[in-house]
Amino acid sequence: MIDSQLLDLCASRILERCDQLAIHSSEADRLTRTFCSDAMRDAHETLRTWMNTTGLDCSLDATGNLIGRSSVGNCDEIFMIGSHLDTVVNAGRFDGMLGVLLGLGVVEVIQEAGVELPYSIHVVAFSEEEGVRFKFPFIGSQGITGSFDSANLDLTDRDGISMRSALHQFGCNPDEISDASYQAKNLVGFMEAHIEQAVVLEEADVPVGLVTAIAGQTRATIQFYGRAGHAGTVPHDLRQDALAAAAEFILKIEELGKNTTGLFATVGNVVANPGLSNVISGSAELRLDLRHENDEQRDAAYKKIEALISSVSLSRNLSGSVVTVQHSPAVPMDKQLSSHLESAISEAGFPLEKLVSGAGHDAMVMSRLAPSCMLFVRCREGISHHPDEFVSKHDIRAALDVMVRGLIKFAKRKGK
Amino acid sequence: MIDSQLLDLCASRILERCDQLAIHSSEADRLTRTFCSDAMRDAHETLRTWMNTTGLDCSLDATGNLIGRSSVGNCDEIFMIGSHLDTVVNAGRFDGMLGVLLGLGVVEVIQEAGVELPYSIHVVAFSEEEGVRFKFPFIGSQGITGSFDSANLDLTDRDGISMRSALHQFGCNPDEISDASYQAKNLVGFMEAHIEQAVVLEEADVPVGLVTAIAGQTRATIQFYGRAGHAGTVPHDLRQDALAAAAEFILKIEELGKNTTGLFATVGNVVANPGLSNVISGSAELRLDLRHENDEQRDAAYKKIEALISSVSLSRNLSGSVVTVQHSPAVPMDKQLSSHLESAISEAGFPLEKLVSGAGHDAMVMSRLAPSCMLFVRCREGISHHPDEFVSKHDIRAALDVMVRGLIKFAKRKGK
Repeated sequence: MIDSQLLDLCASRILERCDQLAIHSSEADRLTRTFCSDAMRDAHETLRTWMNTTGLDCSLDATGNLIGRSSVGNCDEIFMIGSHLDTVVNAGRFDGMLGVLLGLGVVEVIQEAGVELPYSIHVVAFSEEEGVRFKFPFIGSQGITGSFDSANLDLTDRDGISMRSALHQFGCNPDEISDASYQAKNLVGFMEAHIEQAVVLEEADVPVGLVTAIAGQTRATIQFYGRAGHAGTVPHDLRQDALAAAAEFILKIEELGKNTTGLFATVGNVVANPGLSNVISGSAELRLDLRHENDEQRDAAYKKIEALISSVSLSRNLSGSVVTVQHSPAVPMDKQLSSHLESAISEAGFPLEKLVSGAGHDAMVMSRLAPSCMLFVRCREGISHHPDEFVSKHDIRAALDVMVRGLIKFAKRKGK
Repeated sequence: MIDSQLLDLCASRILERCDQLAIHSSEADRLTRTFCSDAMRDAHETLRTWMNTTGLDCSLDATGNLIGRSSVGNCDEIFMIGSHLDTVVNAGRFDGMLGVLLGLGVVEVIQEAGVELPYSIHVVAFSEEEGVRFKFPFIGSQGITGSFDSANLDLTDRDGISMRSALHQFGCNPDEISDASYQAKNLVGFMEAHIEQAVVLEEADVPVGLVTAIAGQTRATIQFYGRAGHAGTVPHDLRQDALAAAAEFILKIEELGKNTTGLFATVGNVVANPGLSNVISGSAELRLDLRHENDEQRDAAYKKIEALISSVSLSRNLSGSVVTVQHSPAVPMDKQLSSHLESAISEAGFPLEKLVSGAGHDAMVMSRLAPSCMLFVRCREGISHHPDEFVSKHDIRAALDVMVRGLIKFAKRKGK
């Protein structure tokens, strides 16, 4: 249906553009592009040029999202496609950017192919998904969905600059954030393509996968309180070493993760206090991350972890505590939209691989406002958040093919 | 021999002075007094008053030590008594200060009792033993023994102030450090009293103990290098989690310490990289502290630890490395001086308890220059480096008694 050469051309262009966007970084020798940074401004300028060339009408919204609006089709109904433009520190070229550029690519293919859709496509480059600058993620998609709590405007980055001031400096008016949200009635759907960040697709040898849900996530801070003491004088049998308790806990979390199907359990940090080589740790604080596609199973795992904190503390004659920092339920993707993507995958000739996303994505936030679906693109060795991130042109082409087919199927859905 | 009431009086005074010195702190609600700080200047002023009252001739040396010189006796021979006046952060009132004030107390008792000694006593308050400000300990005793490497003058504190500049500001001339060292021929002995920082004396129910040696110490930095990854996407069986490797290592070190008689093995800190809750650690760095009175056994333990790093790395498909930061042999105390203290303990009516010091002390550095001995004073629950540090008046009196007796025995030694 869609000319194969056109898909080839557009896929090549997307790959080149991933490289070109990666130039816009706050660091000389690696890619780091955070919310409302100068690097982001440069990336916007580049993206605007491409959007304008494609005939999209560009604007910056109140939370720093760059949106390209296609005036083709019925402007009362909007279908939004995109992902985020910010990165982690020392990032790869695809996480986020690929989804934005695939959105733009979809518009180009549709225009070139002369396909007419009964809705206007908006390509969105979300301003912030990773949460690096203000330790607060999803600013962009929260802004668009009207779910942004403006109390967060007072958050400050490590230089003491507030989010409010960063937005102002970027040319946004944070007071307009509540007005900026898309109306639910106009937004008929959202589609995000994103690298998989794991190896399910690679092991199954398929280019794209259909995301059925985004895993629920619990984040918690765990403390062990022991007794500080001199490393050279306190006998081992009298120690209440909080770091040793933390170490035991870390290994038990690892064991739990290994032995529970579908569970991702990670301690990503531990801070020992006082943290000196010659002092037995008086306390230790750990950061736990827990994910599962099934909320009940995640809750059950969390209960086990609370019991672990107690048992480790008890056996070591010290105390422990846990504070839940985040507890987000799993978010299923929209069934109807997903079924169109599923047919599109099949029609394009690829085996169907359904996945649960362990990572949070803008589609999770967008699903609060509009039916949302998500396509994963195979990435080499599952590497992400790293300069070695790699996606092949073949797989970008496959994603483009499936997304265009999916949009056409959606346009022809019943009831329209 | 020495009047019991005089010992009582002096012991009470020492206890009161410990309280009075503790007022001089850089922090409002807790005791923190680092090298060449304003708090140290205030402490010196107070100590000078007491030293002058006792008839000691006070002076500040080039490394910030405050020395009170008794002109009584043969001034060609010097016996030095003391400890350090600096503290850790949030310290107790006794670690260091007690040894300084016991030195001063010894002079007072000897003077009051009319004892004549054939040497001049110098009471020293070392400027720096804990190593807090410049992460470099024993500045004072290194200065006195002529073992201070002036390259360390360029070390900077966390505010960027160099040691050289800190000394200048404190009224010292760092260029004179090499001249400041005591001549070995003049210094006939050094005696340090210090809180035990462990519970050997408490469990044996004796007030003081004779230190036979200061344990050898190895400090090392251990690294595990894994692979960073997304906490929500990388399956557990594919992870190379450096923090989990560190945790396993910490527990194995704990096990080694528990199962090796006389060994103190501590991991006091671990830093995970990137240290984010949602990222599997790519690397982790640990600080190890290893002590034993017997150098061969410590070396054997260190070899086991090197093997542990390899086995943990191998089993987890990641790599590990170790850098030895410090490797100090055990330091035996002077046999002759110690034998006088041993007789003094017996004469004073206390059971003899011989101990190895797990912690380093100024006596360790002083032994490079002069015969040195050390007396431990019982401290409640072995607590040190903590506001709860506690020493009873009874035990201070016992220490005073033993020290005075020891000095008299030394004066009457053979060959004099």
